[in-house]
Amino acid sequence: MTEHQEARAPMTAAQAGLIGRLAAQLRVDSIRCSTQAGSGHPTSSLSAADLMAVLLERHLRYDWDQPSLPTNDHLIFSKGHASPLLYSMYRAVGVVEEDELIHTYRQFGSRLQGHPTPLLPWVDVATGSLGQGLPDAVGLALAGRYLDRLPYRTWVLCGDSELAEGSIWEALDKAAYYKLGNLTAVVDVNRLGQNGPTELQWDMDRYARRVEAFGAHPLVIDGHDISAIDDALTSARSRPDQPTVILAKTIKGKGVPEIEDRNGWHGKALPKDMAERAVAALGGPGNLRITTTLPEQGTPEITPNPRAAISLPRWEVGDKVATRAAFGAAVSALAARPEIVVLDGEVGNSTHAGEFKDAAPDRYFEMFIAEQQLIASAIGLSVRGYIAFAASFAAFLVSRPFDFIRMAGVSQANIRLVGTHAGVEIGQDGPSQMALEDIAAMRAVHTSTVLYPADAPSTAQLIQTMADTPGISYLRATRGAYPVIYGPDEKFPLGGCKVHNAGPDDEVALIGAGVTLHECLTAAGELAEAGIRARVIDLYSIKPIDIETLRRTCFDTGGRIVIAEDHYPEGGIGSAVLEALASVNTPRLHLALLAVKALPTSGTPQELLDAAGISAHHITAAARSLL
Amino acid sequence: MTEHQEARAPMTAAQAGLIGRLAAQLRVDSIRCSTQAGSGHPTSSLSAADLMAVLLERHLRYDWDQPSLPTNDHLIFSKGHASPLLYSMYRAVGVVEEDELIHTYRQFGSRLQGHPTPLLPWVDVATGSLGQGLPDAVGLALAGRYLDRLPYRTWVLCGDSELAEGSIWEALDKAAYYKLGNLTAVVDVNRLGQNGPTELQWDMDRYARRVEAFGAHPLVIDGHDISAIDDALTSARSRPDQPTVILAKTIKGKGVPEIEDRNGWHGKALPKDMAERAVAALGGPGNLRITTTLPEQGTPEITPNPRAAISLPRWEVGDKVATRAAFGAAVSALAARPEIVVLDGEVGNSTHAGEFKDAAPDRYFEMFIAEQQLIASAIGLSVRGYIAFAASFAAFLVSRPFDFIRMAGVSQANIRLVGTHAGVEIGQDGPSQMALEDIAAMRAVHTSTVLYPADAPSTAQLIQTMADTPGISYLRATRGAYPVIYGPDEKFPLGGCKVHNAGPDDEVALIGAGVTLHECLTAAGELAEAGIRARVIDLYSIKPIDIETLRRTCFDTGGRIVIAEDHYPEGGIGSAVLEALASVNTPRLHLALLAVKALPTSGTPQELLDAAGISAHHITAAARSLL
Repeated sequence: MTEHQEARAPMTAAQAGLIGRLAAQLRVDSIRCSTQAGSGHPTSSLSAADLMAVLLERHLRYDWDQPSLPTNDHLIFSKGHASPLLYSMYRAVGVVEEDELIHTYRQFGSRLQGHPTPLLPWVDVATGSLGQGLPDAVGLALAGRYLDRLPYRTWVLCGDSELAEGSIWEALDKAAYYKLGNLTAVVDVNRLGQNGPTELQWDMDRYARRVEAFGAHPLVIDGHDISAIDDALTSARSRPDQPTVILAKTIKGKGVPEIEDRNGWHGKALPKDMAERAVAALGGPGNLRITTTLPEQGTPEITPNPRAAISLPRWEVGDKVATRAAFGAAVSALAARPEIVVLDGEVGNSTHAGEFKDAAPDRYFEMFIAEQQLIASAIGLSVRGYIAFAASFAAFLVSRPFDFIRMAGVSQANIRLVGTHAGVEIGQDGPSQMALEDIAAMRAVHTSTVLYPADAPSTAQLIQTMADTPGISYLRATRGAYPVIYGPDEKFPLGGCKVHNAGPDDEVALIGAGVTLHECLTAAGELAEAGIRARVIDLYSIKPIDIETLRRTCFDTGGRIVIAEDHYPEGGIGSAVLEALASVNTPRLHLALLAVKALPTSGTPQELLDAAGISAHHITAAARSLL
Repeated sequence: MTEHQEARAPMTAAQAGLIGRLAAQLRVDSIRCSTQAGSGHPTSSLSAADLMAVLLERHLRYDWDQPSLPTNDHLIFSKGHASPLLYSMYRAVGVVEEDELIHTYRQFGSRLQGHPTPLLPWVDVATGSLGQGLPDAVGLALAGRYLDRLPYRTWVLCGDSELAEGSIWEALDKAAYYKLGNLTAVVDVNRLGQNGPTELQWDMDRYARRVEAFGAHPLVIDGHDISAIDDALTSARSRPDQPTVILAKTIKGKGVPEIEDRNGWHGKALPKDMAERAVAALGGPGNLRITTTLPEQGTPEITPNPRAAISLPRWEVGDKVATRAAFGAAVSALAARPEIVVLDGEVGNSTHAGEFKDAAPDRYFEMFIAEQQLIASAIGLSVRGYIAFAASFAAFLVSRPFDFIRMAGVSQANIRLVGTHAGVEIGQDGPSQMALEDIAAMRAVHTSTVLYPADAPSTAQLIQTMADTPGISYLRATRGAYPVIYGPDEKFPLGGCKVHNAGPDDEVALIGAGVTLHECLTAAGELAEAGIRARVIDLYSIKPIDIETLRRTCFDTGGRIVIAEDHYPEGGIGSAVLEALASVNTPRLHLALLAVKALPTSGTPQELLDAAGISAHHITAAARSLL
């Protein structure tokens, strides 16, 4: 930890003047681009202009020519709707031209979108769903303090409305727990939300008490007092082991007196005439060009080694092993790559993620029961190139932070999710713990890969593959132990599948994944005893999916297919197969889709698989019904 | 408001003795049932046994013979894994027999499941996904204070681990904002989570500061001191305008010295020999029967009137109206039914939910930007029979609280969700605001109904239908204004669809819903000009879906179907149609599935529909390609 703590020289009158002119230009540009676009959030930009002017001129250390420089500070607009202000800052440092800003903002084909996305090289994560930028920043600050061990800082501009999101408090809690003195949140307390006054309005004291109770250092300031802002940002820089939250009392629409602190102006561009008056009153369009302080030189303490020798664990065919255990063993083997990180949702002993802690304790982060922060941490770590696996029970891992996963798709972030204890197979714990909609949800996420292996070797290989798979990859793991099917050298490419018992005269195909693959194999045995030739497809890769093998199977079996899945009927494995086959020519299909149709209860796994109609004898009966 | 505030007589020595014996019996039964089941959470039950014994004997007002009595208190185990304790309490009051408790807990077919569900008449909401019981309870307490106006109290047992969930803080924040003095949370601070010590362990002071900062009244006590517990519960009863959080320092496994405060015992049944020793040391199995104080008599201030005359708004065919505006007008018309409630996520001016506030200000609750609490409030209100519509932007309404929606399915709760601003159609705001996975996610929820009407009259009628639809109904509404298609007297049954331009010689069918229905109608016109007969299906009801009309259409058109949807390709409308057709005999299908395949950007709605390949000319081209 080489936290940078030099005393800054006090601000001179000249600097204060420059910052004042910068703030005016940021306001003018925010008004101009949004009025030109006819939409956007100028008033939410105006309130924060002074805050960001001081940050940009005096505190942010950033080499705009090298946005991926490891030593750069990070600036995240958690209030992504203030994009006019952010883009005006980019203009002020010279990376966005005036013409692009004023004439392309929010236009089709422009990189200056309504809310920031990493299409812009200086944007780390997409924001616009409130309450996410700060949690993502916690992941970045974790990287800075514990992995890179570089003195860069992460600055976050939050809105006051978003402090109503629980995720903000998950973030502050973890930021304090992990002593993230390299993280500073600046809250633009402009009192007005979209619809009217915020819950706490300008009750700065109550905000401060909440921040303090959650372990961060609160600083209440006048968000339009340049000197106070500078002092607060300086103070934040000097506290190595505690995150600072600057609570800045501001005025929405500040700088345009006719709409200052007026309700009804959220998310509205100023009409042309009002914009012209406002721009003129602010001194007219400016051409200030700010030179940001460059970061100190430095090198991350961790150097990724994607070619490190990895010895995946090996198992004997027939051994009974839970795929969650295979995940734990495989990800621990991957610890030989120094860029691999594991994040736990306080269930590491159940998911087996906890085994990584023994292999690489410095790269294992406990997020406790805060799944939104669990995912956000992975997103933040991915900004710095770390390969983070986040694990919890599938029901909680996918559905609790689903908006974070959705936004990771918009960010085009690279994160790895492992959800264990899926489906009715978990047994006695009952439906609250059963992921039965996770495949549908995860398939619909942009950039997602969805995997559901049936045995330990396939799980281990797929975990290794996930490490180098861009986008959001999700592996569903099973609670119970099932026989190892595959030898240690078998390959499991994404978009592939494994075909068992295939012959030219197959009468029907049985498709399963995870636990139902074992049921399909049993059913195929039962059918064989009755003289019925059934091939079995292990659909371990649900997205991407092996269209060609599925298509060929349709021709081989006369379109007779049984699909069994431990998931609700909508959007799951059956749907994935149907979508795939809809894209190619097939013979007429004769399908039986077996899925969990009623609300499950407690019971043994076998009782519940039977009750749901997805166990071997149901598969056998369904296959017979198609003949 | 007739909050009950009488001073209670101090506890006598005899009462304290009785409570001690009750606590011992609750411990004994928690051990017995979980050891018999071979799984469960006895140690998490033992820590809270004293707390619940005092509550049951001295404070809970409940008529066990009439679980749906409006005046009953409510008891929610937010730490649902402590179900052995809850069920042991049910035994102590005589509604569950010893044999059922000991021999059916966690067994297949038993109502005593691993985590509580409303299969039990005394359970209001399913729990087991942590951090949800308290938010749900806020909805119940809102009903008690503002709608029923009855003095019943809502008691919640929370775990300490779940205080890491942001949703807990959303709940306390709203409980304080709405002055819910009728809500008491008892936090069982037993220091140990599943995987090891909790984040704050026994730092009671820090917990208290957080609770206080969020506006609730904290009381720190020794959770094994009967008298202190009684004082705290009494104190909680006497504070009409502020929720109380009793922070009880407890010992996990309390009462079984060999495992007290020992890590590694979470979620483990005691082995048989240890259980026998423990039961003997606790005095052996008991047969105490507790008589709970009955609630005062009273009648809810609101009497539902499902037959109230409703005048839905009317529009002229051809008028351009946004379906979100139709929602606002329709739900405001429904205000004539006194059981209808509207919950807003601080975007009521955009969703048009805000119009209900003018019609029925007492039944409109602002939840600010806290979508988890938004859904939880609806769930809590549904427990008391209120018909709550929760509205926000579809992207946030579905994905941020998805775990709450999932659990509402497990609860079999009746809630109504309206998500506006869906898909690329929203335009300039960009992908962070675009719901493109909501249909996939919502279709996969147990008990869900998924609707996506294309015009104002169909929206209004479906909103009225949702009011009387059990389960979780979701209506997706569009941002932009589109022409009214249907007359005011047209009917839109669930599971139906509307067929346009149907004839016996149709060569192709175009299926759309919401915004793409308009594109399909335009495409059909283009095709007609080229002499191609295309029928159009308005699939306003995506789940349930009109299988029979879809099947007939396949036969009429030779299986040629184009489906266009403003949603990612996985799990959406195309999948719903494929799933439906897979269940019936059809001719061989020739399908074109048009959906949003790439990450969208900002732009005008028409530019974005074009770029996504789901606008009229793409539909026309796809139809031609099938011929």
